[in-house]
Amino acid sequence: QTPNLQTPNLQAAVLQAGYRSGRLRVTEVIAAVYDRIEARGDDAVWISRFPRSQALARAAALDAQRDALFGPPPAPTAPMAPAGSTGSATGPDHDPDGLGGATPDLPALFGLPFAVKDNIDVAGLPTTAGCPGFAYEPTEDAPAVSALLAAGAICVGKTNLDQFATGLSGARSPYGTPVSPFDPTLIAGGSSSGSGVAVAVGLVTFAVGTDTAGSGRVPAALTNVVGLKPSRGLVSTRGLVPACRSLDCLSVFALSVPDARLALSVMNGYDAADPYSRRLPLMPPADDAPAPDAAPAASLFPPEQGASGNNDHPPRPPHGLRVGVARPEQLTFFGDRGARAVYDDGLRLIRGVGARTGEIDLGPFLAAGALLYGGPWLAERFASVGEFVTARPDEVHPVVRTVLEPGASITGVETFRGLTHLRALRRQADEIWRDIDVLVLPTVPTTYPVEAVQADPIGLNARLGRYTTFVNLLDLAAVAVPVGFADGLPHGLTLIAPAGRDEFLVDLAARLHARTGLPVGATGHALARSGPAGRPGTPAGFLDLAVVG
Amino acid sequence: QTPNLQTPNLQAAVLQAGYRSGRLRVTEVIAAVYDRIEARGDDAVWISRFPRSQALARAAALDAQRDALFGPPPAPTAPMAPAGSTGSATGPDHDPDGLGGATPDLPALFGLPFAVKDNIDVAGLPTTAGCPGFAYEPTEDAPAVSALLAAGAICVGKTNLDQFATGLSGARSPYGTPVSPFDPTLIAGGSSSGSGVAVAVGLVTFAVGTDTAGSGRVPAALTNVVGLKPSRGLVSTRGLVPACRSLDCLSVFALSVPDARLALSVMNGYDAADPYSRRLPLMPPADDAPAPDAAPAASLFPPEQGASGNNDHPPRPPHGLRVGVARPEQLTFFGDRGARAVYDDGLRLIRGVGARTGEIDLGPFLAAGALLYGGPWLAERFASVGEFVTARPDEVHPVVRTVLEPGASITGVETFRGLTHLRALRRQADEIWRDIDVLVLPTVPTTYPVEAVQADPIGLNARLGRYTTFVNLLDLAAVAVPVGFADGLPHGLTLIAPAGRDEFLVDLAARLHARTGLPVGATGHALARSGPAGRPGTPAGFLDLAVVG
Repeated sequence: QTPNLQTPNLQAAVLQAGYRSGRLRVTEVIAAVYDRIEARGDDAVWISRFPRSQALARAAALDAQRDALFGPPPAPTAPMAPAGSTGSATGPDHDPDGLGGATPDLPALFGLPFAVKDNIDVAGLPTTAGCPGFAYEPTEDAPAVSALLAAGAICVGKTNLDQFATGLSGARSPYGTPVSPFDPTLIAGGSSSGSGVAVAVGLVTFAVGTDTAGSGRVPAALTNVVGLKPSRGLVSTRGLVPACRSLDCLSVFALSVPDARLALSVMNGYDAADPYSRRLPLMPPADDAPAPDAAPAASLFPPEQGASGNNDHPPRPPHGLRVGVARPEQLTFFGDRGARAVYDDGLRLIRGVGARTGEIDLGPFLAAGALLYGGPWLAERFASVGEFVTARPDEVHPVVRTVLEPGASITGVETFRGLTHLRALRRQADEIWRDIDVLVLPTVPTTYPVEAVQADPIGLNARLGRYTTFVNLLDLAAVAVPVGFADGLPHGLTLIAPAGRDEFLVDLAARLHARTGLPVGATGHALARSGPAGRPGTPAGFLDLAVVG
Repeated sequence: QTPNLQTPNLQAAVLQAGYRSGRLRVTEVIAAVYDRIEARGDDAVWISRFPRSQALARAAALDAQRDALFGPPPAPTAPMAPAGSTGSATGPDHDPDGLGGATPDLPALFGLPFAVKDNIDVAGLPTTAGCPGFAYEPTEDAPAVSALLAAGAICVGKTNLDQFATGLSGARSPYGTPVSPFDPTLIAGGSSSGSGVAVAVGLVTFAVGTDTAGSGRVPAALTNVVGLKPSRGLVSTRGLVPACRSLDCLSVFALSVPDARLALSVMNGYDAADPYSRRLPLMPPADDAPAPDAAPAASLFPPEQGASGNNDHPPRPPHGLRVGVARPEQLTFFGDRGARAVYDDGLRLIRGVGARTGEIDLGPFLAAGALLYGGPWLAERFASVGEFVTARPDEVHPVVRTVLEPGASITGVETFRGLTHLRALRRQADEIWRDIDVLVLPTVPTTYPVEAVQADPIGLNARLGRYTTFVNLLDLAAVAVPVGFADGLPHGLTLIAPAGRDEFLVDLAARLHARTGLPVGATGHALARSGPAGRPGTPAGFLDLAVVG
């Protein structure tokens, strides 16, 4: 990897410590962000941006808000933390007033630059969904975006995507193909292609993506960042151009798990106007998972080998955690030996913290994934954008059109049969979930050159989604975490658990990420420590979480 | 009403007290049941029956089982309790050994005759689903039937139904139309037409029905019996010819709520092989309903008017219970003044026990109901039996064919849009459920002559389902309870609550039914007292329920 040593460190802990102390001004950060975006030229990351002047005006208002609370900053302001600095934000010099997490006055996302995938409404910029002919001018922010702005974050612009969020490569956009920060001949993943790269190369602290079949995780794996795909219904999908409306999730890309969690803590919330919004416990009590009448399942993990796995939820360390992994014959990397090596390294890291791994049958999961493009859910995609595709076929990306058009001829009978089939697969998966606390899989089996994807856009796309596509169909939550590099390319794991276990997953993912010792994204910076104890993955709740300097 | 004074009293408490004391033999009861069935001749109630000899052999085995436990019966055995007796089973003479509920040795349904709707598999009898050409010979009992038999109940036979359970009148069967026990020119309701009548006229203690759009409630209302439609997924639907597979429920008809509850306590249970089976709390804790982040809803019931409604679950009396009723302009009886009068009487009974009624907007409920035949769920019906309908149209009832055939041309796009529409309606209904504990509606607005239904089979069917069709779509449980008579015809109310509240509903329904003072079904018998304290609706759990003599 060749990290850019000029890359600013935009991790939330670093920025917020700087803002609070006055060493760093929001205007400085935003100016640096725009400088860097302009210096990169046409990198296919953005579809539209707010003008620099507008972002700077908002930054200046935030600086004034800060000064009203803490007084004028010390002069002269320090330069931004250079690359190669520790990235630690917990030294005493970062919190001179000693207020730490007890300062309630700066909003949670104060001064953090972010990007939004261009299938989500942000008032003031068009929503294109990756299709110029489809574009419209939203008059309101999506509720999730509105919450981020209200919490002090600064929206830089809208990022590129596979058209209509249909694809996992990033190579299905008329706005160009964002490429891997680690090898410009390779894809960066999709469909949230621009969101992943924007975070990885240090243009924003976090980016909002979407994830129906893996669009919030595949780009994370290929750009060495974190991809947090929350439970369905945890974040409102109002203001989103739907892919599969019953499955779509807003997701977060960030350099670290705590940063992704911070954004989710602001975005999440029940929305009575979104039919698919849900009230979910983020951290259900340990004893509610197995029903009282549940017959004992054959256990992969004999009790004598460790503590009672069912009770191992944060804040306790993952001692005795039961980790499901794929059987060897169901695990393929399509010949990518580097990917396999990093996968093995990742499992060693997990076992190193006292978790036990056991092989499970991935069959029901893979079968559920196959339904998304081989079953009736194509009709759900067609329900969203099919009228446009039918009316203006020439304005649709040819690959996307090829994928979407069969959705028109799926029958209601096939749809109900597919729903029942999925229900049966979910029943099988539920039995597996009685045996394990978390499922750990490669996020993607391998990656491909842009040219290869263009030559076989549908076949290679299916490969990319092998370990991601089933997640929303089976009502699961997932976090994609970087784990290591092989031959200069990043590889990661995804941690998966039933919906509602987001907090549990995030805690586990933070611990895993911290143990990798990896630099974050393509920035060259170390993972910032965060939380009162300087411990990554501090198990605070989403709602009371505080990132301190 | 003209009750048949020769009708045996088949209520479970009466039979079981007799069996235990030895005054009554199972063989006697079964012989009387077959005598009575034969005396009625062709009443269109049955599609098939087990031979008398086979039922008597099983009865004899049960009598022997009883004698092995309690010794030989006192000779001579007493005649069956004549009609006009109190029906009470709690006098000391009924429990001479004083064992009461502490006798674990007789199975829960020992010696109780029952019937099964003929779209549910019973090994040894064909399953016709009301269509001779469709009939097949099942090799296994449906799991629910199997459980009933294992608990000592005696299956008499299979009952008539609207073909493929598509209809609410009972007038869509090639096996004839069962008629009201109170007026032979009137329908008895459907689709579980034979099940309702078999219970009402005293041929069985209880009957298994099914309920997708109201088939387990409409016949109850028209025959003065109880119709218990449990939560979706509480009873396995394996061995059922599906109507709408995602919505179908097995249901129970009985003369009393405790008898219906007794049968359900045996039938219910998670079935891993049924994709739509669910693990459901029958009695969720009182404080789990409103989510912690729930915004306060505008309340129909100002707190100063009574106790905190949310905590009013059984076993406490329904003091302060919040009862939702329809707004006057949404309440129609299609001109049936008797039905309206009994409805008003029913609400007075409910208010008489300290419950508060408040008007709610029935709009989302009615809109959801309209989706069942006017939306994509017709495609789900077609997924079940469409191939047969297409292949052998002449063997399908013409009205049923007219209803089903449009299901073939519904698209997947329409289906997913319908699912989202339903989700939005459910969201609106959920808001209403934050305001009320139970919704009380007429079970049917009115009833019709068989001839009228034959003249307008689809229009009048829709009227019959006005207050029932939405229940499964919105994932609710319901109990239809007799409330009173007008002009010699029975009318009832249905109590409705969210899925999982079955026990709560059953308790409430038992109290309401007891307060009506009505004779049960068309038997002329009084409601049997049951439970250790002789109190109807004793709030024991399904699984530890014991009916004592």
